[in-house]
Formats: sequence, structure tokens, C-alpha cells
Amino acid sequence: MSLIVQKFGGSSVANADRVRNVARIVTETYRRGHSVVVVLSAQGDTTDDLIAKAREINPKASKREMDMLLSTGEQISIALCAMAIEGMGYQVVSLTGWQAGMLTNSAYGGARIKRIRTERIQRELDKRKIVLVAGFQGINKYDDITTLGRGGSDTSAVALAACLHADLCQIYTDVDGVYTADPRKVKGAYKLEEITFDEMLELASLGAQVLHNRSVEMAKRYNVNLEVLSSFSGVPGTKVKEVVKTMEKSHVSGVAKDKDVARIALIGLADEPGIAFKVFSLLARGRINVDIILQSIGRSESKDISFTVARGDMEQAQALLEKNRDTLGFNSIEVNDQVAKVSVVGAGMVNNSGVAAKMFEALFSAGININMISTSEIKISVLVDERDADRAVQAVHDRFFSEFGSGN
Amino acid sequence: MSLIVQKFGGSSVANADRVRNVARIVTETYRRGHSVVVVLSAQGDTTDDLIAKAREINPKASKREMDMLLSTGEQISIALCAMAIEGMGYQVVSLTGWQAGMLTNSAYGGARIKRIRTERIQRELDKRKIVLVAGFQGINKYDDITTLGRGGSDTSAVALAACLHADLCQIYTDVDGVYTADPRKVKGAYKLEEITFDEMLELASLGAQVLHNRSVEMAKRYNVNLEVLSSFSGVPGTKVKEVVKTMEKSHVSGVAKDKDVARIALIGLADEPGIAFKVFSLLARGRINVDIILQSIGRSESKDISFTVARGDMEQAQALLEKNRDTLGFNSIEVNDQVAKVSVVGAGMVNNSGVAAKMFEALFSAGININMISTSEIKISVLVDERDADRAVQAVHDRFFSEFGSGN
Repeated sequence: MSLIVQKFGGSSVANADRVRNVARIVTETYRRGHSVVVVLSAQGDTTDDLIAKAREINPKASKREMDMLLSTGEQISIALCAMAIEGMGYQVVSLTGWQAGMLTNSAYGGARIKRIRTERIQRELDKRKIVLVAGFQGINKYDDITTLGRGGSDTSAVALAACLHADLCQIYTDVDGVYTADPRKVKGAYKLEEITFDEMLELASLGAQVLHNRSVEMAKRYNVNLEVLSSFSGVPGTKVKEVVKTMEKSHVSGVAKDKDVARIALIGLADEPGIAFKVFSLLARGRINVDIILQSIGRSESKDISFTVARGDMEQAQALLEKNRDTLGFNSIEVNDQVAKVSVVGAGMVNNSGVAAKMFEALFSAGININMISTSEIKISVLVDERDADRAVQAVHDRFFSEFGSGN
Repeated sequence: MSLIVQKFGGSSVANADRVRNVARIVTETYRRGHSVVVVLSAQGDTTDDLIAKAREINPKASKREMDMLLSTGEQISIALCAMAIEGMGYQVVSLTGWQAGMLTNSAYGGARIKRIRTERIQRELDKRKIVLVAGFQGINKYDDITTLGRGGSDTSAVALAACLHADLCQIYTDVDGVYTADPRKVKGAYKLEEITFDEMLELASLGAQVLHNRSVEMAKRYNVNLEVLSSFSGVPGTKVKEVVKTMEKSHVSGVAKDKDVARIALIGLADEPGIAFKVFSLLARGRINVDIILQSIGRSESKDISFTVARGDMEQAQALLEKNRDTLGFNSIEVNDQVAKVSVVGAGMVNNSGVAAKMFEALFSAGININMISTSEIKISVLVDERDADRAVQAVHDRFFSEFGSGN
């Protein structure tokens, strides 16, 4: 008998039929002899509806009161799902974040889990009850309700799986796994059986919205076996783990696109030591995250630095740099938010220089210009014009995954 | 500086405008220098909507999970109202039942408050914050959420006022006070400035749905000064207290009608000692509450007993009595649910026999037949045919309260 944590997202519990569907999946797992802890998100649009209610009353409401408000969404889900499970004749108990012992710091709206007091959950499991826990929420040291921010319910589930030493943490969602590329947009994209934590992290940060990075990072840290699967299809999903058995040298697991990116170039910086440090520490103090960085080779006394930021940060970054133009000593700033990042992700990629060459060749064949290039252990990213992005993904995907182009 | 507890019902917080209206009333009280603790109900139809959601999933859901579900309604109210108060620039904090220390027994769906740990509220008041508390809810010794059942938010407010030694507990509702009769139905009905706890208890139990009896009983026990007033009108309401200053010998404070009543008559009972005891202990064991009891004077070997019960209990009472016909030894049962109870209520009434005479005279003049009569320290009730009930109330009210008929 093993312990399984199952997490269901908002669309999986959106109405009475879907709640009953979740109850069926949960009770089937229980009937197979497992102990089951279930983490639920708020139903469908509940959170958005609550946010709209709050905005109507006070658009600048404090985060503490927003958390007090929003945490009701998950509480409604666990109560309704418990009722559905009761209706099927099983012993069940629903627990809010504080009842489940989810202790967080005090960063309302984006709290971090510090510790889970698992005694209550353990006691209920010992009574052979199915335990439902409200995701996305906890309490801080003042006994005030906090929420975990984006991807919070995934994080709740992984944290519980880690603390309870669960054998598996299943993340049920409205897609049935992790694909080699977005299947709605890329012909030939297919579902992966397995993927490593690191690959999943890169894919998520590159815009594949299956699992939130926080939960994958946590799963990696505590070595929690994850599975991403659909609550509708009933077919096996994608397993996310430390090492995957199919891993080979030049394994490429996916192609991703990220449009939330803008490029900033500082032209004519003085070619003196520490100039990069000055630029990026300035941006760090302004809480602006920088992604790809490219520095031209200094041929004269001046050099250029270009880098990418999230589009929402572009204007602030530009203003910050302009304000410090004298200290930094550059000639001009160029900004461009009509760009997109296309990446291939695969563990062990760094050992196979052919992967990069294959990607560039695919883009060249499709007549797509590359603005910037960035590589890491398991990822190669290129910056292209936004209008070329979809064609770029398809071309790269064809090259790596199609029958004809596969060199994997 | 005094401490005031203010309670607002569901219609008072039904939408954003009304929530802002509540915030105005609360902050005005605070600006006058008072400490303010506010108890809120769920918005408008929220509770009914949640019940409908539950029914769709499982009509026989456990009460524990119903309480988990329903308690979200008040939590939404306190969060939204806190946001409105924040928007007006005041320091405020919202607290759920468990955060406010509302400890109850474990009777889910109808829990009783056992104790309030007021430390948290006291601490927030000491910081000069306005404190909002979710009504209708608490936690039991297992740390599970409970709800207090009907009239629960009024009870929360009175209990808090008692434990915090508040100077006043204001119950804001959609009527602006306690009237001498239902003003929508009885011409000449007017609002009372003051009323005693006992009168309020009789009026509430007689169908004047302003305050729930549980909260009035608690206010009487702990001598909490109550005021019933409207959150819309802005005019003074009705004060409910132990002794009212305008009290006179033959003071009559109101005329009430109760249609939730049925009459049962046992005909031809053996005229032997203990027969009444047998009948009513049987009904008590069946958890059927009996109200008016009338026993005929034994003229022969047999006698009749008639009594009233709530309409919902009539069939069960009848079945129970039929089942025990042999033991009780009666000839027949007559039941009638086309009756209504009309009552006049007033402290000190017992000392003035003229009150009863005046009531009967009014009914006689209106040609209304009286089925049963019952009197107590502060109340005279008559049972009439249901079709006569409204006319009876008007006739009695005219006799006691109109310019011409007033003998008060």
C-alpha cells in the first residue's frame, strides 16, 4: 500500500459533474488499496469572480484581505468534493490550509510554505479516510490566512507529497501530459512518457504552462515523483523525475516558445572593467529579471550589451537605464518588444554540439533570422522576430521530431 | 470611549454599494471615538446558493462538510467589508470564527458557543483597529469548522458583546425596529422605542422575525444592551433591555400572529390521574414541542385534551398518539392545521386583568371565534381560524394602539 497525493485544478472541479468525476478518480485510487491525499483548486472561475468582487469595492485592497477572500474558493471545492465522495459511500474529511497544518511566511498573495504540521492529516489517514486539502493556502505565524500565489495548488500538492513521503504526486489538469511542443499549434507534437525535472523547469519557464516552476523546483529538491495527467482522458500522463530511463546523449524533449520577452540593447558603452556588473546590478536593485545576455566583443574603446527582460518590465528597465546614463556612459538605448524566444530543451544536450547546429540549420532553411543565442546545460534558446516565432517552432520541431528529420 | 458591537445581516451586505454603506456606518461609529467590533452575515443569497450547490452533488451531505462549505459565505463578507473600510482610510482586520476564538460544541449545523477566546480581538482593538468577525461560525475541540444554525450571526454578535463587556450591541437589519404589529399588514402599527427582553422573546416566538430567540435569551442572561435598527434608514431603532423606562402597569408592546401552528385534540380520555403526564411525556420523547394546552373539565368518566404543535410536527404527533392509543385509552383524535395564534405581549400584563377582557372584546366585536386561550406573565394568546387571523390582529391592535381604542 502506498500513499498517493492527487491534485486537481480549477477546470477539473468546475461543476457538479466534474466534481463527481474527481470523486470517481480518487475513490478508484483508494479502492486499489492506496492512502490518498487530494489537493484541490478553486472551481473554474471562482477566483476571478472573487477578484472582480474585490475590485468593485476597493481596487487597492490589502493583500491580507485578498487572501482572506480568495481562500474561500478552495474551501468550497474541498467541501463539495467531500460531499461527492461521501455520496459514494467512502470515509472522507476535508481540511482547509490551516487545518492541514500548512505553515507559511507572511508574504500575503505569494507566501512560501515553511513547514507542514502533518499530524492532523496523518491521524485522518490512519483512520483510513480520504483526506482533501484546500490548495493554494496556508497560515502565517499570526494565524492569518495566506495564499501561495500563481501555481499555488501545485506547490501545495508537491509540498504535501514531500512531507508525507508520498510515493507519487499526480497533477491532474486539462492537458494529458507534457508534449514535445504545443499540440494545438505544432503539427506532429506528441506526448512524452517521461521528462526530467530540469527539462520540465526549462519548458515551464519557456512558456509551456503545464506545471508551475515553483512546484517542479520543490519536487526536484525533495525528489518527489510527479505525474502530469488529465482528469478527463483516463490515459497515462507524463512522469517527471530525476533521471528518466529513455535518456540518451542527444535527447531532446521539447520545443517551446515564449512571447513574454523584450530586448534591450545598450550601444556604445565604455570598454572598461566592471561595466556589465554596473548595468546588471542596477537592474537587479530595480527587481528586473534579465534572461539572455549578449555582449559584443570589444573591438574599439566601446562595446554593446544587449539582453532580454519580460515585456512588462521593458519600460521600467529603459527608464532606469536612462536615469543612470551618466554613470554607465552609453550612447543610446534600443528596445524591441516584437521578439520571441524559441528553445529546444533536453537533458545531456550540452554533450552534443550537433543539437545546436541542427536547430540553426532548421531555422536557416525556413529563412528565419536569429537575433540572439543563449545556451545552457539542457537548453538552446534563440531570439527571433515575433512574426517568425510559430514558423520557427514548427521548423525546429520538424527537424528534431518528425519521421524525416529526427536525429534524436 | 465605549465598545460597540454592530451586526449586519445578509441583506445589509448584499452587494458592493451596501457593503460600502455598512463601512460608512461602522467608520462613523469609530470616528465618534468608540471601539467597534462588527459581525457580518453572508451576502444576500450566498448561503442559499451554496446549499443548492451541495444538494446538486449530494442531498445527504454530512453536516460537517456543509459547515465547511457554508462558513465561506461569512468569510467573503468580512473580507469585502474590510476592503471597503481600508478604502476609506481606516485600520481594519477581518477574522474568521476560529481566528476570533469562537469555540463551540460539535453539533454541526446548530452548534452552541461554549466560550470565546477574546485575546486576538482584544489585541486588535488595542491597536485601534476596527475588527470584523465572521458571524454564524466557530470551531469545535477537533479544530473543525461549525456553524450556529438559524439566527447564528445574531448569536455571534450577542456572545461577543457579552464576552467583551460591550456597552451596546446593535443588530442592523432590513427593518428599522420592533413594531407593535407587522407594519406591512396592520394599519396603525408603530415602532417601539424600547422593549424588554421577555417581551422580545414572546414576540419573536410568536412570529415577529426581527431577532432570533437564541440571541435574545443570551442577551437577557448576560444583560447585553441590544438595539435593533435599520442599516438603510439611519433613524434610531428599538432598544431591547431588562427594564424599560416607559413601562407601566398595563403596558402592551405588541400584537403578533403565528401561522405555524396546528391543533390536536384527544377526545374521550379516561379521567384518571396521570393521563396528561402520559400524553405529554410521550410527545416529549418524540421530540415534539407542545405549546398551548387545554384540558376540559372532567364532567363524566372521560375528558378531552387539546394542544397545539408546529405544523411540521402534526403528522408525526398524530401517528405517535395513534400508535399508543391502547395505552392512553382515547376514543378519537381530531387534528386541524387551519388555525393561527394571535397574541398580545406586554410586561406587567398579568397584573391587569383588563387586558384579557379588552382583547376578547375586540375579537367578539369583529365576530371572530376563539378556539383556545393561553395566558402567561407577559402574554395572552388565542387560537383562531387561520382565515380570521389577519382581521383578528388588526382588531386587537386597533383596540390597544389606535387613538380611539387605546387603553394603554
